[in-house]
Amino acid sequence: MTAAVNREIHLAARPHGWPTAENFRLVETAVPEPGPGQLLVRNRYMSVDPYMRGRMDDVKSYAPPFALDAPLDGGAIGEVVAGDVDGFAPGDLVLHGLGWREYALVGAASARKVNPDLAPVTAYLGVLGMIGLTAYAGLLDVARMQPGETVFVSAAAGAVGSLVGQIAKLRGAARVVGSAGSPAKVERLRALGFDAAFDYHDGPVRDSLKAAAPEGIDVYFDNVGGDHLEAAISALRPHGRVAICGMIAQYNAATPPAAPRNLALVIGKRLTLRGFLVGDHGDLRDEFVREMAGWLREGRVAYDETVVDGIENAPEAFLGLLRGENLGKMLVRL
Amino acid sequence: MTAAVNREIHLAARPHGWPTAENFRLVETAVPEPGPGQLLVRNRYMSVDPYMRGRMDDVKSYAPPFALDAPLDGGAIGEVVAGDVDGFAPGDLVLHGLGWREYALVGAASARKVNPDLAPVTAYLGVLGMIGLTAYAGLLDVARMQPGETVFVSAAAGAVGSLVGQIAKLRGAARVVGSAGSPAKVERLRALGFDAAFDYHDGPVRDSLKAAAPEGIDVYFDNVGGDHLEAAISALRPHGRVAICGMIAQYNAATPPAAPRNLALVIGKRLTLRGFLVGDHGDLRDEFVREMAGWLREGRVAYDETVVDGIENAPEAFLGLLRGENLGKMLVRL
Repeated sequence: MTAAVNREIHLAARPHGWPTAENFRLVETAVPEPGPGQLLVRNRYMSVDPYMRGRMDDVKSYAPPFALDAPLDGGAIGEVVAGDVDGFAPGDLVLHGLGWREYALVGAASARKVNPDLAPVTAYLGVLGMIGLTAYAGLLDVARMQPGETVFVSAAAGAVGSLVGQIAKLRGAARVVGSAGSPAKVERLRALGFDAAFDYHDGPVRDSLKAAAPEGIDVYFDNVGGDHLEAAISALRPHGRVAICGMIAQYNAATPPAAPRNLALVIGKRLTLRGFLVGDHGDLRDEFVREMAGWLREGRVAYDETVVDGIENAPEAFLGLLRGENLGKMLVRL
Repeated sequence: MTAAVNREIHLAARPHGWPTAENFRLVETAVPEPGPGQLLVRNRYMSVDPYMRGRMDDVKSYAPPFALDAPLDGGAIGEVVAGDVDGFAPGDLVLHGLGWREYALVGAASARKVNPDLAPVTAYLGVLGMIGLTAYAGLLDVARMQPGETVFVSAAAGAVGSLVGQIAKLRGAARVVGSAGSPAKVERLRALGFDAAFDYHDGPVRDSLKAAAPEGIDVYFDNVGGDHLEAAISALRPHGRVAICGMIAQYNAATPPAAPRNLALVIGKRLTLRGFLVGDHGDLRDEFVREMAGWLREGRVAYDETVVDGIENAPEAFLGLLRGENLGKMLVRL
């Protein structure tokens, strides 16, 4: 090891509404020594994800809140540099949950070796990892999309959304519509094979969705909430399903926006709205990896990455993600 | 036949917000003559139900809107008085869909003979009919209640709600909580075997529900929407389910009230919200009738009826239903 210093990002203060740079603090610590059963990992890539915004609040949720004045955490890929654990050797690349720091002390049970010859290592933080499984399980298991159906996905140029649209087409959707936040993203969606795409800044989502899917939709994969969800409820056909993956539109609202005023339509249309977390769908992982790896090999799935360099820029990468500045998966290279 | 005059209730004007007597008109017509395949039925009881409010608006929905200046319709039980149709004879009691009139001309295919020796005829408009099946299918098929769970039902002293609570107990719910709109109704719920009941006028629903189910709930059977649904979403435990049967709180709102502001909780708790119509659950009818008839025979299910006399009072019966003046099933005796 050449560096004796580890740099990590701490939560300095909880945000009210939109987080800012002041909510984070770059802290230098000594590189720790691995104890029994521990690996010292030099992180190479870390993930920033929308769900992390929720963990910055001090509320009970599915994941515990980040602690103040302690490093944040999240998905990361790094190289084992020390640690005497059976089955691991220096140089091994491992996937684990202690991002937001240059060096991580990882319990061996929490580390999963990844093979850089099968796919670029960043794929394990995205298309072949939790992100891909989120898209796959949400679309096929939660929303139970059937061939011939029309699918709408919001935040469609994001890491999850862009995969939802592509998986839908590969699994036989008749029509796939995506919404995104810029003309460049809309253009990218068309290149990815979406049948229609619109910029949600261009007018009421309800109108844009109606133009893009005049016959209505059967499935809505919700990453946004708010007016997107309301528009989808109006557009859904009888027996339509909504997989609710995220509601990024309201993560930063000090007062949550009104939920869809047309919610009563769920009765007459017999709609199902279902929230989900990818962690409940581990039973699909093997099937997912097999199918997705095949699609990647055949060049039938494309994925975008937006990479920011340096731990010191991780907060800005996260803030940029919340502002929608990423195309595809947002990563920090360490 | 002694009466040559038929009286029926027409929709005189579409309501804006709460309907009033002015939206209805009592009209006298000649008693019609049955044509081939038709039965002339002298109605004995007609049903008024909350869903009829939706049909008074001129909006596309699961059921077509009532036409202006024409009789309303809905569930009714009557006696065949004329008509030459195989399988039917004068004096037969039939269940059909042409209520809101004293005499109905019913296509034989739309009439179902009922046996008054098996159950009081009004039961076929309630506990053994669509009302009972709505409670049964919503609780067991839509919300998939499991033994040992905690169930909350709103409008619990109504026709559907009171059955939901009793079926839940009979099928092994650990705890059943109901909300209603008066102290007398709350008392009735306790007599029906509800473990806890509260008057929603007594304070925020969220607080009352928390007191009644401090450990949270697993299933919410929604007849009300609005603040009841919001409170339920807060109280639901992970993997909880909501069967959305009605949203009576908003049927009469000119502007729909805000939907639950805490809707984003569906993600972390992995909640499922599902709207349903009883018409989709006909496959359960035989099982339901068998099980419910058994419970009735054994005296394990009780049901209330609020009966108003005379076709001329049908509008007031319906308006009283919307105001919650009924205990159990609201019926009009003709």
